[in-house]
Amino acid sequence: MTNIYAVILAAGKGTRMKSKLYKVLHPVCGKPMVEHVIDQISDLHTHKIVTIVGHGAEKVKGYLGEKSEFALQAEQLGTAHAVMQAEEILGKEEGCTLVVCGDTPLIKSSTMEALVNFHTEQQAKATILTAYTDQPDGYGRIIRNEQGMVEKIVEHKDATDEERKVKEINTGTYCFDNRYLFETLKKVSNDNAQGEYYLPDVIEILQKAGEKVAAYQTADFNETLGVNDRVALSQAEKIMRERINEQHMRNGVTLVSPENAFIGPDVVIGSDTIIHPGTVLSGNTSIGADCEIGPNSEINNCQVGDSTVIRHSVAADSEIGSRVAIGPFAHIRPASQISDEAKIGNFVEIKKSVFGKGSKASHLSYIGDAEVGSGVNLGCGSITVNYDGKNKFLTKIEDDAFIGCNSNLVAPVTVGKGAYVAAGSTITNDVPGEALAIGRARQVNKENYVEKLNLKK
Amino acid sequence: MTNIYAVILAAGKGTRMKSKLYKVLHPVCGKPMVEHVIDQISDLHTHKIVTIVGHGAEKVKGYLGEKSEFALQAEQLGTAHAVMQAEEILGKEEGCTLVVCGDTPLIKSSTMEALVNFHTEQQAKATILTAYTDQPDGYGRIIRNEQGMVEKIVEHKDATDEERKVKEINTGTYCFDNRYLFETLKKVSNDNAQGEYYLPDVIEILQKAGEKVAAYQTADFNETLGVNDRVALSQAEKIMRERINEQHMRNGVTLVSPENAFIGPDVVIGSDTIIHPGTVLSGNTSIGADCEIGPNSEINNCQVGDSTVIRHSVAADSEIGSRVAIGPFAHIRPASQISDEAKIGNFVEIKKSVFGKGSKASHLSYIGDAEVGSGVNLGCGSITVNYDGKNKFLTKIEDDAFIGCNSNLVAPVTVGKGAYVAAGSTITNDVPGEALAIGRARQVNKENYVEKLNLKK
Amino acid sequence: MTNIYAVILAAGKGTRMKSKLYKVLHPVCGKPMVEHVIDQISDLHTHKIVTIVGHGAEKVKGYLGEKSEFALQAEQLGTAHAVMQAEEILGKEEGCTLVVCGDTPLIKSSTMEALVNFHTEQQAKATILTAYTDQPDGYGRIIRNEQGMVEKIVEHKDATDEERKVKEINTGTYCFDNRYLFETLKKVSNDNAQGEYYLPDVIEILQKAGEKVAAYQTADFNETLGVNDRVALSQAEKIMRERINEQHMRNGVTLVSPENAFIGPDVVIGSDTIIHPGTVLSGNTSIGADCEIGPNSEINNCQVGDSTVIRHSVAADSEIGSRVAIGPFAHIRPASQISDEAKIGNFVEIKKSVFGKGSKASHLSYIGDAEVGSGVNLGCGSITVNYDGKNKFLTKIEDDAFIGCNSNLVAPVTVGKGAYVAAGSTITNDVPGEALAIGRARQVNKENYVEKLNLKK
Repeated sequence: MTNIYAVILAAGKGTRMKSKLYKVLHPVCGKPMVEHVIDQISDLHTHKIVTIVGHGAEKVKGYLGEKSEFALQAEQLGTAHAVMQAEEILGKEEGCTLVVCGDTPLIKSSTMEALVNFHTEQQAKATILTAYTDQPDGYGRIIRNEQGMVEKIVEHKDATDEERKVKEINTGTYCFDNRYLFETLKKVSNDNAQGEYYLPDVIEILQKAGEKVAAYQTADFNETLGVNDRVALSQAEKIMRERINEQHMRNGVTLVSPENAFIGPDVVIGSDTIIHPGTVLSGNTSIGADCEIGPNSEINNCQVGDSTVIRHSVAADSEIGSRVAIGPFAHIRPASQISDEAKIGNFVEIKKSVFGKGSKASHLSYIGDAEVGSGVNLGCGSITVNYDGKNKFLTKIEDDAFIGCNSNLVAPVTVGKGAYVAAGSTITNDVPGEALAIGRARQVNKENYVEKLNLKK
Repeated sequence: MTNIYAVILAAGKGTRMKSKLYKVLHPVCGKPMVEHVIDQISDLHTHKIVTIVGHGAEKVKGYLGEKSEFALQAEQLGTAHAVMQAEEILGKEEGCTLVVCGDTPLIKSSTMEALVNFHTEQQAKATILTAYTDQPDGYGRIIRNEQGMVEKIVEHKDATDEERKVKEINTGTYCFDNRYLFETLKKVSNDNAQGEYYLPDVIEILQKAGEKVAAYQTADFNETLGVNDRVALSQAEKIMRERINEQHMRNGVTLVSPENAFIGPDVVIGSDTIIHPGTVLSGNTSIGADCEIGPNSEINNCQVGDSTVIRHSVAADSEIGSRVAIGPFAHIRPASQISDEAKIGNFVEIKKSVFGKGSKASHLSYIGDAEVGSGVNLGCGSITVNYDGKNKFLTKIEDDAFIGCNSNLVAPVTVGKGAYVAAGSTITNDVPGEALAIGRARQVNKENYVEKLNLKK
Repeated sequence: MTNIYAVILAAGKGTRMKSKLYKVLHPVCGKPMVEHVIDQISDLHTHKIVTIVGHGAEKVKGYLGEKSEFALQAEQLGTAHAVMQAEEILGKEEGCTLVVCGDTPLIKSSTMEALVNFHTEQQAKATILTAYTDQPDGYGRIIRNEQGMVEKIVEHKDATDEERKVKEINTGTYCFDNRYLFETLKKVSNDNAQGEYYLPDVIEILQKAGEKVAAYQTADFNETLGVNDRVALSQAEKIMRERINEQHMRNGVTLVSPENAFIGPDVVIGSDTIIHPGTVLSGNTSIGADCEIGPNSEINNCQVGDSTVIRHSVAADSEIGSRVAIGPFAHIRPASQISDEAKIGNFVEIKKSVFGKGSKASHLSYIGDAEVGSGVNLGCGSITVNYDGKNKFLTKIEDDAFIGCNSNLVAPVTVGKGAYVAAGSTITNDVPGEALAIGRARQVNKENYVEKLNLKK
């Protein structure tokens, strides 16, 4: 099989984004556009990927890291000039080279693979990825000859009325014979109104030289969507979301309202899990089978077991077991580990804690920097006092302990196995196992004081 | 009028759902598909409904209970074989029999009624429910003769190019003369590639025998949507949701964003109520007039009065009065009864409690297993300590009592009428009416101790 | 330039709305329909705007106040009769007069400006705003003569088959020469089935009198949407929302899901701010640059600085600084002022308080009627006891104070600069600066009491 190379055009500024963030780094479903492109290209087992960077070069390189090699286009002198920058890395290679824009996040590896295969079968020197659209206004049109080969690409503004009726358009993705590409690039001139070196000119030069230029039409016009402003960004996001969501549904996940399910590209979900509306799943999140997630929940970078229910809650960077009930209105903060069958109820925050099997914090609690055993019951309003204004300390609650309501456990402190803390106590010293700890004042009733103190409404 | 019978085909496995749940039990807007079908059919005052069950037979029967009779199709040998299983129950009846798939949750009683009426007027032996679609690929086409009667149904794969151009398709719903149906079913053979007995063969046999076969075309193609995977399930859910929501809007309810309002089929809403985005209303919920519900609220099985506001909150299995303010971020758990003009504020949970007229729990409270009188003020952070680790106990707070902030009421306990509990108290004994109860330590200030104890940041 | 006047028809009852609220006061994206119309017309620098009121006249007048003059149509005798009521105010003026329905909230000033300009250029006596639609059923059709001038408007029910094929429809918005308008109105009769005086008759009378009647076709059919029921109301809301959201995206705001972003017409958002799904921004809210808002947040009438994050939270009528972190599940109530770099964490409510720079209330707190200095740390569960059942009192917490967990600050009270309140204390007296305040009982451990008291599960 032929070697495959790729050049990704990612040097443009993206003025219409009106952003401090470099255009190709704008995320689509949580992943930068250019990374979508590179991930799809990588699926083709390309030999080398060269990303042409310009504006924001350091940030793009920093973000992509090992996923690509880079060539700098110091001045933006046109797309042909951009590709030219890859010559040092690719100029001597034998094979075919894909040229793809870094702002087309919807392009699929299967389409590029079909493009390469068609290019190879046709023994073409260049093959254009084209698409059919009913609204070709503004796009370059593909003019084919009688053999179906490409005669020329004509820009909208230069097209005759007859040419404007053509509905096959240039997507801006190409496959070239690598040697011919770099040889021909040298012949491209900037003798035009903008004074730029244009990549489509390579096509014209090859064609005039009698080389074979083919065109492969993809079925899905959406794939070729280029993102130049935030309106297009939101369209790309929507299409990507539909694509991701359809995949989950085909896998046996119920999405009550796919339009209201916001699932990142790397999220894994087990079958028979139900995703309710208003749910955001992002990062490296995996959800097991038979779960119910949402409505109105946000889970980022969590591993969740089977048959767990998470409602109206937020969780990040944590492990959550099976048959766990979370919410409504719970917050699992990073570095937490919630064991099987635990219950984290309403208005409860867990932070950087281990929470044992079957343990419960049902209401109005804060558990931070804690190790909670199994079978523990944390009463309503009980909290770990883990911070003295300077340092954070550990709270340890052993198996089967019962912490009364509105208790303060002032860390560092340990409540022993099976111990019982009375409601309203502030615990500053360790409680031995099986002991009752109490730290509260005795109640006094002052009869008729409401009137005496004039407290009556 | 003629007697009407119905056979519902609900024996298939639904492999493409990739589910442990039997296909026809998958819910659409909270109600299983097959139940939607049966409820619509029941509106026709059918004499008998026979649901053909197979995979998951016991679960379907258990779920539908009295709504249908059942016949078991032990082996799945085709749709004609399925209908045949109803012979014992229906074989001797005079009248017409609807055959409907249990996985077409969108079919309406009005359409089936029109089908039966057309069938009767035409004096047909069989009438096919058909629909028009611009994309008939994959469907069986209806080939009519010059009189408009059905010549045959031709499956997509068997159709000629000419026949494939026909855009009237077989929806899979039929109306038969009952006697002819069961007689003809006996003549259906399984001499085909799959070795199955197909129901459309009944049509062909009747037509060849010179019997009249009619076709009634419904205007709404959507009604005939058959759900075979979760993508179709989500489409059915969306269409059903639009249908439900339109009905509420016609009744005078404002839906700020119908695409973001998730309302079950049995929910009732009064006029001039506003439903904000992200609201889920399910089960036997009724909402009065002039309410504002949402955004981001979930209410299941609740009766809500008039002019009540529920924002960013969750409520289940409870009664909520008129002019009540709930939320944001409140949680009303089952068996609660919130009286008129009550206020349940942020981060408040009510569970299995009566909450009296005009009483307030404005912030950070938990009221469980309690009887709260009218005019009571529960201070911020006040909670009922209803659980000692083994049993739940009752808290009683009489009219006009004032419960100070961060108080614990350790049940069983009664706070008398007009009594006053000081902030920070843990109350373990009954408080007489009009008494002041206090149970907290006295404050001590230790000057300059911050430096001495090295507490300074 | 010619003087411009406007008459807004707002007297109809709107029976199909099924509402106690007068039709034109129903809000679209938070602003009454008629106010959208008036605001757009005002952009044309009209000399006088007369709103014709009838049903609910006092409420409409009360709502619109200074934005319009008013004429009462006591009886609803038709659209011509309605316009006639403006005669006293406008009858003597020279110029052109727009007549617009108060229930067409989507009409734009740019379209009306183009209508007026076209009217002036054509030197017409009347110009109809028309639109093109593929589904003209029910609309009045525009019949033009060979010169492109209007021959007549023919109502759907009166149209011939040929006329029904016309797809240019009457939007119900007109521009008239003011003098001709009021003169001609007097000639309109009510000799028709309904016994009403119809405004389109003015067109016919002018045309028959040989006066020039022009028609200006707008490109956007949506603009002419008239709202007669809540289904149309939801459509208007959706189109308005799309229009608002597109504008924000063009300005450099990322809307992760525009379908799930609910932004009022007067909201301002800085560039590079990200709006997550389920976010409602309303009233006079301004959001700075580089913020992240949502998911599932609701902000009304707030001024928010730059680089602030607000997640799963609710805020109203407050000022929020820059680099502030709010939520998830926080509630900022009116008259609060949150300074730069503050943190308001989960299950925290702030009400009518100043919250100083860099101060933190991270969990389960209520801060009401308080002045909190800078650098203050409010521990988990700490609350201000601002209400004694009769009055509200002020809590003052000076810079760098540390309030321990589950503390009650019983107002009126001051905690001095750098003071330290121990966890679990109820503070009733002022705490001097740098002092340690403590008000809690000492802990006692009773060994093996769990068994003795039979507390074991």
